[in-house]
Amino acid sequence: MTKKWVYLARNGKSEYTKVLGHDPELLEMKEIFGGKGAGLMAMTAAGAPVPPAFTITTEACIEYMETNELPEGMWDQTLEALEDIEEQTGKTFGEGKNPLLVSVRSGARVSMPGMMDTVLNLGLNDETRASLAKLTDNEWFSYDAHRRFISMFSDIVMGYSRLHFEEKLEELKEKEGVELDTEVSLEGLKWLVEEYKKMYKARFGEEFPTDPYKQLELSIKAVFDSWNGERAVAYRDHEGIPHNWGTAVNVQTMVFGNMGEDSATGVAFSRDPATGAHEYLYGEFLPNAQGEDVVAGIRTPHRISLQGSREWAKERGISEEERANRFPSLEEMMPEVYQEFLEIVDMLENYYKDMQDMEFTIERGKLWMLQTRTGKRTGASHVKIAVDLCEEGVIEKETALERVKPMHVELLLRPSFDPKAEKDLIAKGLNASPGAAVGIAVFDAERAKEAAEEGKDVILVRPETVPDEVPGMLASKGVLTQKGGATSHAAVVARGSNLPAVVGCEQISVDVNRAQFTVGDKVVKEGDVISIDGFNGEVYAGKVPLIKAEYEEQEELITLLEWADEVRVLGVRANADDGEGASESVMMGAEGIGLARTEHMFFDEAAREAVVNMIIAKTDEEREAALADILPVQEKDFEELFAAMDGKPVIMRLIDPPMHEFLPSREELIEEVTRLRIEAPKSDELAEKEKMLELVNGMWEVNPMMGLRGCRAGIMYKGLTETQTRAYVQAACRCKKRGVDVHPEIMIPLVGHVNELKIERKKLEEVAAEVMEEEGVEVPLMFGTMIEIPRAALTAAKIAQEAEFFSFGTNDLTQMTYGYSRDDAEGKFLMQYVDEGILPENPFQVLDQEGVGRLVKICVEEGKAANPDLEIGICGEHGGEPKSIDFCHRVGLDYVSCSPYRVPVARLAAAHAAIRNRE
Amino acid sequence: MTKKWVYLARNGKSEYTKVLGHDPELLEMKEIFGGKGAGLMAMTAAGAPVPPAFTITTEACIEYMETNELPEGMWDQTLEALEDIEEQTGKTFGEGKNPLLVSVRSGARVSMPGMMDTVLNLGLNDETRASLAKLTDNEWFSYDAHRRFISMFSDIVMGYSRLHFEEKLEELKEKEGVELDTEVSLEGLKWLVEEYKKMYKARFGEEFPTDPYKQLELSIKAVFDSWNGERAVAYRDHEGIPHNWGTAVNVQTMVFGNMGEDSATGVAFSRDPATGAHEYLYGEFLPNAQGEDVVAGIRTPHRISLQGSREWAKERGISEEERANRFPSLEEMMPEVYQEFLEIVDMLENYYKDMQDMEFTIERGKLWMLQTRTGKRTGASHVKIAVDLCEEGVIEKETALERVKPMHVELLLRPSFDPKAEKDLIAKGLNASPGAAVGIAVFDAERAKEAAEEGKDVILVRPETVPDEVPGMLASKGVLTQKGGATSHAAVVARGSNLPAVVGCEQISVDVNRAQFTVGDKVVKEGDVISIDGFNGEVYAGKVPLIKAEYEEQEELITLLEWADEVRVLGVRANADDGEGASESVMMGAEGIGLARTEHMFFDEAAREAVVNMIIAKTDEEREAALADILPVQEKDFEELFAAMDGKPVIMRLIDPPMHEFLPSREELIEEVTRLRIEAPKSDELAEKEKMLELVNGMWEVNPMMGLRGCRAGIMYKGLTETQTRAYVQAACRCKKRGVDVHPEIMIPLVGHVNELKIERKKLEEVAAEVMEEEGVEVPLMFGTMIEIPRAALTAAKIAQEAEFFSFGTNDLTQMTYGYSRDDAEGKFLMQYVDEGILPENPFQVLDQEGVGRLVKICVEEGKAANPDLEIGICGEHGGEPKSIDFCHRVGLDYVSCSPYRVPVARLAAAHAAIRNRE
Repeated sequence: MTKKWVYLARNGKSEYTKVLGHDPELLEMKEIFGGKGAGLMAMTAAGAPVPPAFTITTEACIEYMETNELPEGMWDQTLEALEDIEEQTGKTFGEGKNPLLVSVRSGARVSMPGMMDTVLNLGLNDETRASLAKLTDNEWFSYDAHRRFISMFSDIVMGYSRLHFEEKLEELKEKEGVELDTEVSLEGLKWLVEEYKKMYKARFGEEFPTDPYKQLELSIKAVFDSWNGERAVAYRDHEGIPHNWGTAVNVQTMVFGNMGEDSATGVAFSRDPATGAHEYLYGEFLPNAQGEDVVAGIRTPHRISLQGSREWAKERGISEEERANRFPSLEEMMPEVYQEFLEIVDMLENYYKDMQDMEFTIERGKLWMLQTRTGKRTGASHVKIAVDLCEEGVIEKETALERVKPMHVELLLRPSFDPKAEKDLIAKGLNASPGAAVGIAVFDAERAKEAAEEGKDVILVRPETVPDEVPGMLASKGVLTQKGGATSHAAVVARGSNLPAVVGCEQISVDVNRAQFTVGDKVVKEGDVISIDGFNGEVYAGKVPLIKAEYEEQEELITLLEWADEVRVLGVRANADDGEGASESVMMGAEGIGLARTEHMFFDEAAREAVVNMIIAKTDEEREAALADILPVQEKDFEELFAAMDGKPVIMRLIDPPMHEFLPSREELIEEVTRLRIEAPKSDELAEKEKMLELVNGMWEVNPMMGLRGCRAGIMYKGLTETQTRAYVQAACRCKKRGVDVHPEIMIPLVGHVNELKIERKKLEEVAAEVMEEEGVEVPLMFGTMIEIPRAALTAAKIAQEAEFFSFGTNDLTQMTYGYSRDDAEGKFLMQYVDEGILPENPFQVLDQEGVGRLVKICVEEGKAANPDLEIGICGEHGGEPKSIDFCHRVGLDYVSCSPYRVPVARLAAAHAAIRNRE
Repeated sequence: MTKKWVYLARNGKSEYTKVLGHDPELLEMKEIFGGKGAGLMAMTAAGAPVPPAFTITTEACIEYMETNELPEGMWDQTLEALEDIEEQTGKTFGEGKNPLLVSVRSGARVSMPGMMDTVLNLGLNDETRASLAKLTDNEWFSYDAHRRFISMFSDIVMGYSRLHFEEKLEELKEKEGVELDTEVSLEGLKWLVEEYKKMYKARFGEEFPTDPYKQLELSIKAVFDSWNGERAVAYRDHEGIPHNWGTAVNVQTMVFGNMGEDSATGVAFSRDPATGAHEYLYGEFLPNAQGEDVVAGIRTPHRISLQGSREWAKERGISEEERANRFPSLEEMMPEVYQEFLEIVDMLENYYKDMQDMEFTIERGKLWMLQTRTGKRTGASHVKIAVDLCEEGVIEKETALERVKPMHVELLLRPSFDPKAEKDLIAKGLNASPGAAVGIAVFDAERAKEAAEEGKDVILVRPETVPDEVPGMLASKGVLTQKGGATSHAAVVARGSNLPAVVGCEQISVDVNRAQFTVGDKVVKEGDVISIDGFNGEVYAGKVPLIKAEYEEQEELITLLEWADEVRVLGVRANADDGEGASESVMMGAEGIGLARTEHMFFDEAAREAVVNMIIAKTDEEREAALADILPVQEKDFEELFAAMDGKPVIMRLIDPPMHEFLPSREELIEEVTRLRIEAPKSDELAEKEKMLELVNGMWEVNPMMGLRGCRAGIMYKGLTETQTRAYVQAACRCKKRGVDVHPEIMIPLVGHVNELKIERKKLEEVAAEVMEEEGVEVPLMFGTMIEIPRAALTAAKIAQEAEFFSFGTNDLTQMTYGYSRDDAEGKFLMQYVDEGILPENPFQVLDQEGVGRLVKICVEEGKAANPDLEIGICGEHGGEPKSIDFCHRVGLDYVSCSPYRVPVARLAAAHAAIRNRE
């Protein structure tokens, strides 16, 4: 028996009979039918009306490549398939009043540049052209189709460049004195078809083939041959695609939407791609038109459903009467077709189990689905569609979870502009990084940083950005550049830093020296307020009101994340330093505070003087007096935290940054002292400043990141640890007495040697016992340490014996493991490293699993082995980054902790990790 | 058969017959005989004349503890042993004209506080006292001995505190109106003996035992009982010593050096402990005297050998006649005894196989060895004695190597003062850290640092030091403090940093405010030159000439290190940046340059301007022009290196420090700009300084240690790597053409990701090929990387595939692994951490094996697994530190590299590591 080389994609009874799973693009189908063929098979299997077609398998191609001849039986099977199509359509191939015209397309397992393009309208000759003219009642169209076919076939199948045919067309247009192709006369076109035929004959020594079977055979062979074309081979070499896959050939009936008022062509979405709504059938069409007409945008398309049409008209101030007359919906024009369409859409959505983006043509009252694919959509609609599909019973919860990417959630929670606001659009660039931002335009990164530090909202505007400007970028609310594309420095940095950005906005002309940009006759000077929309790339003059995306209003997101909570194994906590942040994080689903930074309280204006006094204290008594002033400030903050986190754990980290961060700037003091020495050499002010400078010099460190900070400061400054502990435990005790369910945990930062932990632990426990005694109440107190020094990870077995929990401070751990000072590296070389591919990613954003992650792994394994009850989390910024969360899941962490606004992202990412890594 | 409980230590035929190995203190002997008993056994086994003795075993004690009775047969064996001693000595126990007196001592396996003290002169009673008086011709002495024995026995054996007896003695002295014990009259002593007897009877209800066997029995039981005394038990609990070891009892014949002119007592050394010389018998003695007389220092001791005696007299300006009359040597006084002594000393040295420090007594012409032990000695004599003993065939080479500690070698190579120089000694303190230093006295750490930076030699003088002053200390040549002991901050820091120091010099009075110290009526002001000797704690006014300890003059050291080279497995290279350092290191035995720092050349005055131009260059062209000016400077230096290292490898490390280190100080520029803005606002100088400040600000980094440096700079500054490579390879090629055998190796610093290495390697290889082409000569070029970033160690498997060698930069690796900036940590908290025992050692001096070492181990294992040909060394400062060298040996490094002056230390330490870790 001859092998089966040709398969029919036939409505409702696809020859590909295998029962398909929910994924129609099964690899097995693609292997044999290629990507396009598999799509045809799937659509017909789903029961959609697809213009009858057949696919010649990749196996035929492989055979052909070996023998350089069509495989045995293939041509006969092709003829049989054609006959079947003639039967289905009632058309006849290459002849008759209702001629069958087909398209021929290549279709490999993956799409590939260099493979053969589509040949349309194959089967045309003088006879079928004439029939086409009659059927479409459009002789001009029939000749235009004919001349296009000849040039397309000559070029694509025969390799005779279409440029030669273009020249002839230009000649005609010049002769007729017209500019557009569409303006040439019918007579001209008739002349051109004859000229094209002559050109063909002159080139190949024989007439242009009028026999459609000849046309088909040549086309099929051309598809096969194109597999080994120069460009395709080079592409496969580059991409590592095997050369022995071969390509399939797809032959499909041509349908025409321009065959009169009962014909049409258009696009449709099964749900609203912008909002995810599922109220009616979304999309638009043109009656009596071809696909090209829709693209050309000359005629105004109609809406498909009546409701959609009415909403559309209302938005544009078009009266119902005018709408019904000039732009009737498909529902009104062809109610039966519309009903069938609704059923088909349901069928396809059920089959693909996702929102579909479809192309269709109606040929003389018959609806044909030309293409369907899973529709692109916004972040919001991603969430809504997934949740709706699940609630409609189409997909499982886990599938719904998998459909939504963490990025979608992130986008949902970004600020955007109020769509109802008046906007003064002045330019449009690339939407490089989503989000909306408002601020004063500043044309220098350094000044942007300064202005931001003064509390101003800034939009940094530059011709383009360079690594030096990163600190200025990060201090801004948004970035606008005149040059650069989606992968320019500005775009990469902005996306990486969740900073709204519009880049490559070539309409504006930035003049850095005059600190302004012009667009048309408009001038925007430094200090003028502008608004940029990173979602769509638009730039507005003045302030556009921002809409904060409120989590609690996003019903479907809340539902989805509840499902995520059912699935995930990792806990999700938030990093928050005050009651407000804590409340917000609980609302977003945080199960505790993974990191409350006490330095926040040290920066408090009220405590400021006491902090300086504490640092400059010469005796233990002076220091204790200063600390006593700080205590009440801290305690109040802690009480707020406990109240907000009622019933949930709160990890307080002892003060971490270098002490001199709390003192005045050394550079400014040098300036002031120098100035006063000249201008007021005997002033008290000078004496005072000199004293402060001396102090600051004494505290100054060459590399403060690796200096006297964290537990080192706790050990060196007597009373520091004790005061913070006292404030915290006191707050916990007092809250408990007020009925709050407190779960205090204290965390020691920057431990490198277990002895540091022992010393700090002893102090802590003494103070805690003392306070509980004083307050007459017991609170459960957990004691742990941050793992942020490589040595701590390397000696986890010892450290775990002194701690009840670990929390990875992966920011510092990355700094030390890579030897990158974050303050310096990002501006000086790190962004360039990422741009040039030296590093795959910015390790401060995505956890470096190979290096830093290896330390994490060692630490988890050895820490848990030494202390099986050890609770381990992460509180570095990586705790909110999906890839890093996946890693945390895999190495067996107990929870991640991140900024409140990333808690929803983390909940979803943790669920993904659980699903992905399930055995 | 009864068990043997008692063993004779009998001259020449010790009952302990087991053949002994070279270590006389075999554990097995100590188990049964205790430490003292084992010593007696060993000495007698060696053939030395030891006052006859016997040892009752620890086993007897154990048995006694169980039954609370002397073990069966033990007392009979004791009596037999006593008879044997009587026979040997011709003395009779507790009676007769020549009475046998004995000492009784406890002796456990390890010495232990709380165990029973010595009872001397056991066997005394009225009869034997009278005989002793006659024998010594000293009645006073005999009564003194008797009263001492009664109080000692009553106290130690019977538990009747000697304080009661002291009171009685005080009463006597008051009565007689004398101050010293030695001043009481004979009559007084007689009275005292009778009083003591009465006191004993009053306390115990019976006469003081006159029967020597009773005395002995009670003493032996007291020794056994002391094992379970309160203090001994507590001590064992604390030290973890098992309670079932028990103690031995040693009973030994008393001998007397005060029995006339044919008696004497003294100490001797088999070799000169100061120099190690082996020309004659060293030591001194007093004729007709007891040990106490030697200690009392009232009489001038004689020298033992004639040569020694003559040299001694000559040094003191004593005429030969006077010497021979007043201080004749033992060699002259008792030539036969002297000859016997020489033989015994040889015998003991041969037995112990090391220089011996001996105590001896001559009793009526008979020489007795009381004790021998391995003698303490200086660093120099350590080396000389070990080498001599080996060359004399006494010990093996490896034993000689083991005898010398790395510290001895280090001390040998420290500078010292010319012993012949005139010195103005003004004070003496504790010799806290060895070495000699000369410099101006400076009384403030900050000023010390500044003066040092101006090129002055400084001695920092402080009341005591605190951690803040560490930078000032390290910048000084030596440290002198008024207060503090051998473990004070100053002492610990100085020893750790090889800095000569005299501490606790209470004779001086430091006045920090007046910046001076006074000693007597002498005033030393800031800026005055002083000299301090850390070997002996002496402080001199003015400059004392220093003697540099020249390696090449130290014959025995050279020999010893040649033996070390035969044994060691680790290679030893030096860190040197110029021809001079390289030559010196070769002389000291370096087998290559493990680290040549190119920044040395960048700091060169001639290249300085070019370096600044290179940094501030705005275009690649400007930068290349600047680099072209640097190239010849570098090349010259490299040529000198290659010439010095003819035939040996030279590793050149590309520039490592942050670029801004080459630029002017930021603080100074701020000051100058501020000043000029007021004083000369329109000056060119201001404009210039402002420009420079802007540049410096642009380059400034918060944490430069983790910023733009090392290969990061090489990647960001186009041409930087290329220029250095060109200079290096060009130098190698040109040297080769001149006949030098060059082995160039290039090392990339600060690699954290393998991609950095790939990029740098590619550039290097291109330039190297280009230069070789130009020069028309091929040189073998190795390519490798420093491992100094934790991530590099963690990803060694990948990095090893791009490198031919690794070299651990353990300074940086320690900084990153611990998160300690060395610039800050040592002054701000690290010394205190070490002082308080938070860290066992300063990890910058002794490699932290637990943390940093773990990374090293991971890196070596995975690096060599990925690339078996990988050569791995260490070039951090730890490469010259013995414990770290041992670690390097154990983890399988190929070589260590250190400062030239530490090369000899490293050679020895490497040999030790090889011996110690041999299976």
